[in-house]
Amino acid sequence: MTPRFDLTPPAPDLSAALQACIDNKTKPLGALGRLEALALQIGQVLGSTAPEPGTPHLLVCAGDHGTLRDARGRGLSAYPADVTWQMVVNFLAGGAAINVLAREGGMTLHIADCGVAHDFGARPGLIDARVAPGTASWFDGPAMTPAQCAQALENGARIARDIAAGGARVLGFGEMGIGNTASASLITHLLTGAPMDDCVGRGTGLGDAALADKKRVLAGLAADYAGPRDAFAVLAAFGGFEIATMAGAMLGAAQSRMLLLIDGFISSAAALVAQTHAPALRDYCVFSHRSQERGHAIQLEHMGAQPLLDLDLRLGEGTGAALAWPLVRAAAAILRDMASFDSAGVSKA
Amino acid sequence: MTPRFDLTPPAPDLSAALQACIDNKTKPLGALGRLEALALQIGQVLGSTAPEPGTPHLLVCAGDHGTLRDARGRGLSAYPADVTWQMVVNFLAGGAAINVLAREGGMTLHIADCGVAHDFGARPGLIDARVAPGTASWFDGPAMTPAQCAQALENGARIARDIAAGGARVLGFGEMGIGNTASASLITHLLTGAPMDDCVGRGTGLGDAALADKKRVLAGLAADYAGPRDAFAVLAAFGGFEIATMAGAMLGAAQSRMLLLIDGFISSAAALVAQTHAPALRDYCVFSHRSQERGHAIQLEHMGAQPLLDLDLRLGEGTGAALAWPLVRAAAAILRDMASFDSAGVSKA
Repeated sequence: MTPRFDLTPPAPDLSAALQACIDNKTKPLGALGRLEALALQIGQVLGSTAPEPGTPHLLVCAGDHGTLRDARGRGLSAYPADVTWQMVVNFLAGGAAINVLAREGGMTLHIADCGVAHDFGARPGLIDARVAPGTASWFDGPAMTPAQCAQALENGARIARDIAAGGARVLGFGEMGIGNTASASLITHLLTGAPMDDCVGRGTGLGDAALADKKRVLAGLAADYAGPRDAFAVLAAFGGFEIATMAGAMLGAAQSRMLLLIDGFISSAAALVAQTHAPALRDYCVFSHRSQERGHAIQLEHMGAQPLLDLDLRLGEGTGAALAWPLVRAAAAILRDMASFDSAGVSKA
Repeated sequence: MTPRFDLTPPAPDLSAALQACIDNKTKPLGALGRLEALALQIGQVLGSTAPEPGTPHLLVCAGDHGTLRDARGRGLSAYPADVTWQMVVNFLAGGAAINVLAREGGMTLHIADCGVAHDFGARPGLIDARVAPGTASWFDGPAMTPAQCAQALENGARIARDIAAGGARVLGFGEMGIGNTASASLITHLLTGAPMDDCVGRGTGLGDAALADKKRVLAGLAADYAGPRDAFAVLAAFGGFEIATMAGAMLGAAQSRMLLLIDGFISSAAALVAQTHAPALRDYCVFSHRSQERGHAIQLEHMGAQPLLDLDLRLGEGTGAALAWPLVRAAAAILRDMASFDSAGVSKA
């Protein structure tokens, strides 16, 4: 019943050939710093010393959290739950931050309704990956049934494979779901073992009193959780459909040998679920940025990830992934297009 | 005789209008972090709440340091002095890191010979801004005469004004000059007052023994310097022609109301000279990245600058500026193209 995603590291192992290629470029050894490690990872995932990442794609998964429509959970976000569907409409109209940043980066944007509590009617451009109109309230039991969780994971994997089948080599991830920092905090606590309090932040902008309430409520929910700590059980207990769909999409994308651009706290919660399930996922992930949201640092440390950007972002939607894409593109181009000492006739040190 | 560059802050002051515009975008207040401050600066410099930065330009200034052809100074770099002209040839052939990164970023690249010790012959695409075939050795006196320093500054200002006259609104800066980390270290020490040792780093990759020698040699030169500490006197004493030309170009670009993208340690030494001369320069500068070169942090702190990227780069050529450009482009697009809460019908917190 529970889906199983088998994943192996990129093969063949080109790391020695890639390192030699990077070291022969006309620059002092190591002078491009972290861009060199990024170039090596890109070459490894795309299986080439002259990688062509092509047009990058970005998948934004949206879902609602029943807990936010429960009187006991309403204080978990500074924004009303209706903002989830309103922002999906904004995505489809092209006016949100992620639309602007995807356009600037030449990225193809996909918006998926993974379980928003709203009837969008027929909306061209909206992927129907709807499991239910929002998850169940955490106060009443698990957010989703095992079958719903499996469906969301498989929806994501199918979307990613479809995107790969169209020729894409790079897939970024973003999300929208009022309440999903609370969801990500619970997942982070249960899968990393870090203290619950350290995993909780201000989300869309809670004040001090509301933050204290959020910590109290989430600590209670975490303490009451008696289920298993495996990735998909925790996902079903506290995940949103958007997080489960992203986790499945990450696993499907890695199986399709795509390079993954992970955004901030929520996307990294999905990556944490996916990597806990299939550790080889790590090799395929580029972590875009370090979010201002407190628990993100815990996730990154747990996954051994050093993000590319540190710009105090806390918006989600995939905005950090879109901002990091030009660095990925640049690193691939360095590997592919830059002259070697021999070809340029430049003296070595 | 000494040139004087008058510079005023951007006018009119649009900061309140820009902040209101940013705060009404469909995102939580402040959720785009440092991108919001960047958007505000861009709007201010370009004088618009809907800024159009257009095609960015990047000026790479090359020059040789006589000190590196002096037996007493040869150990200051891991690479032979001939690499300066060899890399200029590489730039003109399109094979260097900056060529690759400028192409990826859609930037127009300009290469200027500001005083390379080589006869390039007729080279289409090479700007002739040659003051002399390399500076004089610091062991024999100032690197350049006051007249040479003035000429390099004026050459730079003229190049920048020409680029502005072609319609450019953004100008990035990079350089090539074997030995110029030593030059930048001396300038940084003399203009910031930071201890000489803290201003010296490994440059293109000196080992521990060579680094200790570099520190000893530069400490001796700094101790022997008895000239005035004003920006252009220090520049004439220890600058390279590439640094002087960049400083002039920065001042000319700011006078032309362009946004400036400052690269790493050497470009920031030029910015330090320019800002010491005309403090309003700071408003026009975007600091691209924090270099691995040790003295860069001192320069940034002195100028109150927080760079956008921190990727352990230490290559120069303007590579950091080219990598930061997409963030500038993105910030301008957020300001210009993103929907407001009202226009998108999204509920506020």
